[in-house]
Amino acid sequence: MNEKIQLAEKLALFSEHWSPRTVTHFNDCDIMVVKVQGEFVWHKHDDTDDFFMVLKGRLTIRLRDQNVVLEPGELFVVPRGVEHQPFAEEETHLLLIEPSGTPNTGDEATAAPHLSI
Amino acid sequence: MNEKIQLAEKLALFSEHWSPRTVTHFNDCDIMVVKVQGEFVWHKHDDTDDFFMVLKGRLTIRLRDQNVVLEPGELFVVPRGVEHQPFAEEETHLLLIEPSGTPNTGDEATAAPHLSI
Repeated sequence: MNEKIQLAEKLALFSEHWSPRTVTHFNDCDIMVVKVQGEFVWHKHDDTDDFFMVLKGRLTIRLRDQNVVLEPGELFVVPRGVEHQPFAEEETHLLLIEPSGTPNTGDEATAAPHLSI
Repeated sequence: MNEKIQLAEKLALFSEHWSPRTVTHFNDCDIMVVKVQGEFVWHKHDDTDDFFMVLKGRLTIRLRDQNVVLEPGELFVVPRGVEHQPFAEEETHLLLIEPSGTPNTGDEATAAPHLSI
């Protein structure tokens, strides 16, 4: 049987930025936590929508035509095919949900490894 | 383009219990908020896993062999086919994610209507 997931407890287990950790799965999706700071690469996912929810801090999702700024309790779905660049001035904690195996850069060659905790 | 979702703002738009409201979609799933209090019916979803995250309050998910108690910042996935009964002593606010169209009771005949806000 599954166990409950305490997100803060999982986030306390690592310190690397831009290295998502899978905490559980549902319906062929990975549920992940990640710590971010600074800017990520511009990228897109051709076939999958990208779920971002801020748990702590403040995330800017730069799109080509606007910026979306998320604070705790706010979420945003980047539609498939849409270029985006996440950016956080201070360390920010996120909940991410994506179809299992989605490369975080949009490209398996440059993606972070798939790690579970 | 999608807009960001402020969960507290969406939850302020309705007061009914056990009536999920879809706030956005991703990858053929509905992302919903719901207010609950008291106990729901025992049910299961034969083909879909069920994502619960507590935003405010305290949720007990009764399973046949154990209870899972969730507080804010905690989540649980009820695997497909597993009977469960959500219960909340005080009003509790949840984030739910399920494949689009999943009946909340496990049975379309008794399910709450699919509402979006």
